Amino acid sequence: MFKKVLVANRGEIAVRIIRALREMDITSVAIFSEADRNALHAELADEAICIGPAKSLDSYANPVAVISAALATGVDAIHPGYGFLSERSDFVTLCEDVGIEFIGPNSHIIDVMGHKQHARDTMRKSGIPITPGSAGLIYSIEEARDIALDIGYPLMIKAADGGGGKGMRRVEDASQLDALFSQAQNETEAIYGNKDLYIERIIAPAKHIEVQLLGDKYGNVIHLGERDCSFQRNNQKFLEISPAVSLPLEVRKNICETAVKAAKAIGYQNAGTIEFLVDKDNNFFFMEMNTRLQVEHPVTEMVTGVDIVKEQIRVAMGEPLTYKQEDIQVKGFAVEVRLNAENPRDNFRPSAGHIDQLMFPAGGLGLRVESALYPHYTLPPFYDSMVAKVITHSNTLEDALKIMERALYEVTVEGVETNIDLLEALVSDEYINWDRVHTKWLETHYMPKWLETEVNTEE
Amino acid sequence: MFKKVLVANRGEIAVRIIRALREMDITSVAIFSEADRNALHAELADEAICIGPAKSLDSYANPVAVISAALATGVDAIHPGYGFLSERSDFVTLCEDVGIEFIGPNSHIIDVMGHKQHARDTMRKSGIPITPGSAGLIYSIEEARDIALDIGYPLMIKAADGGGGKGMRRVEDASQLDALFSQAQNETEAIYGNKDLYIERIIAPAKHIEVQLLGDKYGNVIHLGERDCSFQRNNQKFLEISPAVSLPLEVRKNICETAVKAAKAIGYQNAGTIEFLVDKDNNFFFMEMNTRLQVEHPVTEMVTGVDIVKEQIRVAMGEPLTYKQEDIQVKGFAVEVRLNAENPRDNFRPSAGHIDQLMFPAGGLGLRVESALYPHYTLPPFYDSMVAKVITHSNTLEDALKIMERALYEVTVEGVETNIDLLEALVSDEYINWDRVHTKWLETHYMPKWLETEVNTEE
Repeated sequence: MFKKVLVANRGEIAVRIIRALREMDITSVAIFSEADRNALHAELADEAICIGPAKSLDSYANPVAVISAALATGVDAIHPGYGFLSERSDFVTLCEDVGIEFIGPNSHIIDVMGHKQHARDTMRKSGIPITPGSAGLIYSIEEARDIALDIGYPLMIKAADGGGGKGMRRVEDASQLDALFSQAQNETEAIYGNKDLYIERIIAPAKHIEVQLLGDKYGNVIHLGERDCSFQRNNQKFLEISPAVSLPLEVRKNICETAVKAAKAIGYQNAGTIEFLVDKDNNFFFMEMNTRLQVEHPVTEMVTGVDIVKEQIRVAMGEPLTYKQEDIQVKGFAVEVRLNAENPRDNFRPSAGHIDQLMFPAGGLGLRVESALYPHYTLPPFYDSMVAKVITHSNTLEDALKIMERALYEVTVEGVETNIDLLEALVSDEYINWDRVHTKWLETHYMPKWLETEVNTEE
Repeated sequence: MFKKVLVANRGEIAVRIIRALREMDITSVAIFSEADRNALHAELADEAICIGPAKSLDSYANPVAVISAALATGVDAIHPGYGFLSERSDFVTLCEDVGIEFIGPNSHIIDVMGHKQHARDTMRKSGIPITPGSAGLIYSIEEARDIALDIGYPLMIKAADGGGGKGMRRVEDASQLDALFSQAQNETEAIYGNKDLYIERIIAPAKHIEVQLLGDKYGNVIHLGERDCSFQRNNQKFLEISPAVSLPLEVRKNICETAVKAAKAIGYQNAGTIEFLVDKDNNFFFMEMNTRLQVEHPVTEMVTGVDIVKEQIRVAMGEPLTYKQEDIQVKGFAVEVRLNAENPRDNFRPSAGHIDQLMFPAGGLGLRVESALYPHYTLPPFYDSMVAKVITHSNTLEDALKIMERALYEVTVEGVETNIDLLEALVSDEYINWDRVHTKWLETHYMPKWLETEVNTEE
């Protein structure tokens, strides 16, 4: 049993985890950077320790700083939250070396799932549908042409070691293939010192559907249903729904069972998410696995009643899963929006500073607000711009959106700029066909119109 | 369909109803006294109208002032909340006269249930167990002696028109009967101009168990399970739980079905609650019916997922109930505590004034806070001392209490005195046998010990 756990994060997710620890009678240790001396997570935890300067790389994302804090405070385990060190296998190895339990999967699984081509290969071997593309790495233009002929256009050339668009080329038709393949090869060699490329068909328009998984140390894996995260801007999720409103029950069931099969095949432990792209004919393809808690986990908690964070802690302690698959009932619909300190009218420029006025509603049935803000807090400029998540739950998606509209009406954050106008417009828009939203819809269809409306209103 | 509804109340319940109206796209009208110009309910509603001076009898509890506001603002209906005009049949008659829908039962039912002896008679005729006692009114000492012999001691002599202890006498044994009956008769005659007395056996120790009912205009009545409200001080509820943790499933089922039978027998419409006393052998006896929404309705909402306020509005509009009995599933346990602005160490003296610091947690799974406080609000001294309700929900009562303990740890209300220390002590007390708590337990067993502990701690 854990007596003391360090929360290796900040902001709303650190607060969320500290609350769960308190409810489990486990002593919590917060870490904070010099910029976070007045942060709520440091205030709420039983103990708090400063681990370095404001810059993440020197504090929250510094494995040595975090492990030192853990050793100094004598904790049994570390909860990484999301971001920062949550998917760093080197950090997990460090934890394993010093005998501190990492609340998440082991370093090997994180390694495999962190490498795009390895993850693809692993999933294919487990019988999971992956995006049509090369079976392994491609080194010649002849191979590339064969695969292109096989899978069709548009397609994407990607670097096996890649990330953030490096070594990536989108190819619209056969006339572009030779030139772009050669470019990608040169770029990859320059950056990674190898010519390891692979090719994938582009699935578009596509929905982003992900399955919440939980596994224990005894080979039990269950799913908690799926989420529709197709509302995105620049691949950043903006609004999430559970269950997936647009998919037939049979497809949802199939995706969830496929995800469980994959997780079992790799011996997955703790909470994790498999993300899929779903095309317009409801074919689904493995995209990636997130080997950690996700920002949007509360929508799943609201529809299932399962506290995912507590379950993470329990299975890390060696307890078997509290639930069997047949215990999990998905009830109603939950929606989450991310309140960001940013100005959508100025290219989403982040905002920081003193919070003059703050009011989050906490009442009414089916409402939850996750935030680390408090009145007169000064929001530091160094970290992620997400400052609150508002989550609502009701019998129908329509009712959950109505509650969201009401909740956002009551939210007051003054002193910093936020995206609340955009969120309010979105959730109250009667013309949105929620069934049809795909991952590019928000930025290509909705945002341009919304920005126009705003300008007209102001004139 | 209602386009506009007046909320004839203040404080947290007015806010609760305004939120429900907004979620239903119905325009809300708040009423406020001169002392409530800065109250949250007046701020949140679409329209707000001042209806008189601070004193309740001149504003919130003044039927003419309220109906005038309703006519002036052109509303279709009035939601009375609880307290004030919610059980005043004269007010309901006034609404009926001017053609404004009263969101509650009709004036006849309110009349019958408001008169203790009529309510007893009505329930007995519907086959509902009532406390053993006189079948009708008692005018002679001989009749009183016969009944006492039949039902046993201790017993209570009560005035049929009584309330607030007037004309009431507790009789411990036969030696006291003659003198106390005569006293009660004289007092009743002096106060009410009649000698209408009745006799009831005292059920003690007893649990206070109540059943939440919903009825529509088509004769459909369902229950939403029961609540255990045995934590009381001076007959004021202090902490409520749903479902009743201590009763066997079969008893719970029986009580709930009995309540539905009674409500159907009297043609009950809208939300209502039948309160029962349950003795140590799980025999239950009708106590009274509350023909309105209750303070503690959120615990029922949390375990059933049914929004009782919205359902009240829907059935008042003439819609049939959204749910059939078989749709209602009670899931997990919910607990509510009442945060009062009062000092439990100074005989619960009420407190008012400027709120310097305020922080209610809104995050974590299974937490809800209903309040009309906001930072820097000045709490007026004229009204009920309850300023917030904290409600938690989880799979087990133990987990719900853990969440409550955590939530109360985070609640910050500075500037006025509150009962939060007492609430925290209560919900975190490992030695309480929740199964055994009866209506006198808090004041006779817990409070004296708690007050002592506090003194010791401070020394």
